[in-house]
Amino acid sequence: MSNRLGAQTLTFSKEPRILSSYAIVGPMEGKGPHALDFDEILPDDVLNQKTPEKSERLILEMAIAKTLQKSSTKLDEVQFLIAGDLLNQIISSTFAAATYAAPFIGIYGACSTFAQAMGLAAALLQGDFASKVLIGTASHYQTAERQFRYPIELNVKHIATNHHTVTGAGTALLGFGEEGPRVTHATFGAVVDMGLKDPNDMGSAMAPAAFATIKQHLKDTGRSLEDYDVVLTGDLGRQGRKMLRLLLEGEGFQGLDRLQDGGSKIYGDGQKTGAGGSGAACIAVMTLGYALNKLKSAKARRILVVATGALLSSLTVAQGESIPCIAHAVVIEA
Amino acid sequence: MSNRLGAQTLTFSKEPRILSSYAIVGPMEGKGPHALDFDEILPDDVLNQKTPEKSERLILEMAIAKTLQKSSTKLDEVQFLIAGDLLNQIISSTFAAATYAAPFIGIYGACSTFAQAMGLAAALLQGDFASKVLIGTASHYQTAERQFRYPIELNVKHIATNHHTVTGAGTALLGFGEEGPRVTHATFGAVVDMGLKDPNDMGSAMAPAAFATIKQHLKDTGRSLEDYDVVLTGDLGRQGRKMLRLLLEGEGFQGLDRLQDGGSKIYGDGQKTGAGGSGAACIAVMTLGYALNKLKSAKARRILVVATGALLSSLTVAQGESIPCIAHAVVIEA
Repeated sequence: MSNRLGAQTLTFSKEPRILSSYAIVGPMEGKGPHALDFDEILPDDVLNQKTPEKSERLILEMAIAKTLQKSSTKLDEVQFLIAGDLLNQIISSTFAAATYAAPFIGIYGACSTFAQAMGLAAALLQGDFASKVLIGTASHYQTAERQFRYPIELNVKHIATNHHTVTGAGTALLGFGEEGPRVTHATFGAVVDMGLKDPNDMGSAMAPAAFATIKQHLKDTGRSLEDYDVVLTGDLGRQGRKMLRLLLEGEGFQGLDRLQDGGSKIYGDGQKTGAGGSGAACIAVMTLGYALNKLKSAKARRILVVATGALLSSLTVAQGESIPCIAHAVVIEA
Repeated sequence: MSNRLGAQTLTFSKEPRILSSYAIVGPMEGKGPHALDFDEILPDDVLNQKTPEKSERLILEMAIAKTLQKSSTKLDEVQFLIAGDLLNQIISSTFAAATYAAPFIGIYGACSTFAQAMGLAAALLQGDFASKVLIGTASHYQTAERQFRYPIELNVKHIATNHHTVTGAGTALLGFGEEGPRVTHATFGAVVDMGLKDPNDMGSAMAPAAFATIKQHLKDTGRSLEDYDVVLTGDLGRQGRKMLRLLLEGEGFQGLDRLQDGGSKIYGDGQKTGAGGSGAACIAVMTLGYALNKLKSAKARRILVVATGALLSSLTVAQGESIPCIAHAVVIEA
């Protein structure tokens, strides 16, 4: 286990890099404070498609096309496509994988999908199984609303702890090269279920999972929060972010000023988005947009991305189950 | 890429092994011709649970517990749990992962899940990222019927090309040791979509994916079908099995007598199960039961398992989409 540190962290000494990436968001995310961080802001979230599921898939395919184009890479140079999304049977990813037919590893990690994909891709590169791996994820406000809550036509009122699903896609090509941010570590989380049952407050349910993974990551690497310029969680939202802070404070962790949350940051205060953004695309576009820009502009040298996921379904909620949660972390360095 | 052969095949020179495994099936599978191959046959498929989803999860948890017990392994010795299933948001796997809280990699590959998990586990072992990896999958006739077709209470008549979802779970602990079958290769498939749209004939849709992966595997390894004692596909069923045979014959492949199909074999002719078995558990229990017994009893030395998946959802069918399919292959040797 020479590519491991401690109980849960993988290390990537061969320095797999993000060779190119693309972050697309919808119009609402494009009105938020991070508009300038994204590669593309869509004029509308329908894109002339008959259903929002088709729009979500198209956005993912657009991001894949642009990522390959930016690095002048042909699909047949890519050994794996790793992708997942929130929809039942991850249909956005599987249909995009039919269009971009590289060997496909479908994953499900809810809103933690992006870090899970990134960690797996880096492992396949470090392990001499591949030289180029494409990863991607997408989400769409309308598809998530109608699958997990209500069709938007019903205009059901949201409450303050509700998240607003980000419309967008984030894709990246990982491989070896002279340039691009390096992926140096991945900490895969275990599922944490504290018994919380409120699907309208997923931030509170996810915070203990983020806490567990951060704590384990710091233990495994012998680092403190202060070894990172930014610790970007997502998508805890305003409620979950507070809980994570309390949990870290409670155990005496220093450097809480490093904590930022993708879900809390993606929308502006005036945008009426409850607790903030969520959806598999949220941490993906905040990492590939905001975090990579921080690294590129030398405002940060080392960032810990901690992607959280609430692993519930409409059916588990209806059957009175609690919400199992997970967080996967990756370290990205300039 | 020293751990690769050709365009799509990974090689595992460190010889990760199946240290222990457990295959549980329901009463109906227990009445089929392979009853003696399985570790456990359940007396009923409800198991005193309030819903079939809870039963499915319990079966998966039972299999995990037995797999750990058989190899005297404690959960904290396991570096990864890789699991997936057919249910929306893979809830059987995520909830089982809350009970068995090892670092969790959730995957979705429909009925190809088992080979995808096995291939990923072997890669994590070969890549020095882990020394013990647990994999698992489950399915249940009642949960799949009501999610993908109709609630069984409606008693909707099945047609000859329909599959019957296997109730069961298959789990395995992979690691290094002196004994146990070795996992030597994995070929990850790309998504193949031939435009077929009939959700009542998934065998025909999946056959081209199985064909593509088998063809690529043989090309990558320089082997022929005759280099395998058994090529166990699943779950093509009676219809898809014929199509695969035609595709292979059409391109002049020899050794078609090596082909066997898990879905076609799991039920007896008198069991009224249409085209045969399907569900994520089908190829899992047929591999961990039937195929491993072949290796143990020296009736086979080398088996190619080709797990197929139809990556549709009820929603994609309703929206008139075709059925993207995939097949992942792993080689298991005595």
